[in-house]
Amino acid sequence: MGRDYFEDIEVGETHTFGERDVTRAEILEFAECYDPQPFHTDESAASDSLFGGLIASGWHTAAMTMELLVTNVFADSAATGALGVDELRWPNPVRPGDVLSVRTKVVDTEPWNEELGLVRRRTTTLAGETEVMSMVGLVLYERRER
Amino acid sequence: MGRDYFEDIEVGETHTFGERDVTRAEILEFAECYDPQPFHTDESAASDSLFGGLIASGWHTAAMTMELLVTNVFADSAATGALGVDELRWPNPVRPGDVLSVRTKVVDTEPWNEELGLVRRRTTTLAGETEVMSMVGLVLYERRER
Repeated sequence: MGRDYFEDIEVGETHTFGERDVTRAEILEFAECYDPQPFHTDESAASDSLFGGLIASGWHTAAMTMELLVTNVFADSAATGALGVDELRWPNPVRPGDVLSVRTKVVDTEPWNEELGLVRRRTTTLAGETEVMSMVGLVLYERRER
Repeated sequence: MGRDYFEDIEVGETHTFGERDVTRAEILEFAECYDPQPFHTDESAASDSLFGGLIASGWHTAAMTMELLVTNVFADSAATGALGVDELRWPNPVRPGDVLSVRTKVVDTEPWNEELGLVRRRTTTLAGETEVMSMVGLVLYERRER
């Protein structure tokens, strides 16, 4: 099969991946739809803000991180969706021209019910060497038939 | 001024707002960009999934919630960005045709430094009467000059 089921996932397992360009156009487009605060949508207001220039919405950073997770970890697995996320933090902003990568580590696994198991992963998003996001994701996986 | 600064925000303060349509086209567009799992991007795969039909990415639900928060709470305030979010949960999926609304309540405020204060809000997103997301947001506000 090659698909990762709950039983295939081990605590301590790590993955590092991604080289994802962030463009000014994409920052503006996401923010205009979903987070129209001036430091995300308006270059000159952003220059006058605490951030000193345009920055991506934290939810955009989360979405780009998810894109990298799906492509590199969840694709071709038996992941069936997430219960949620704990301790989501944005310690530094993402700016136009940044290149994002992701490190993720399984911190806990537990059976959820007869069909599913819960996998907790600590995930860190980097722009170059700078940490821009961290979270603990709670993802359900199908269990192998026994 | 009319702008809400840190000192203007009181624990227990609540807001309820929003009537935000969710379309099939927008669910597919977001998912193709940021969360290309089959139950978000492929109608027939979604029908065979645990969800029994197409559902929005949880990150899309978060982004639509943010849109409602910015328009109804953060606009014309001295909010300067978020540190992060705790206890993000997606208890039920969002489906095409749902109409989203948001309830938010200030649960805690504390000075952060000389210029900023931290406001914690418990925010719940509803599709009709069904809870589809909850989280505790940690948002920094400018303090009034003293």
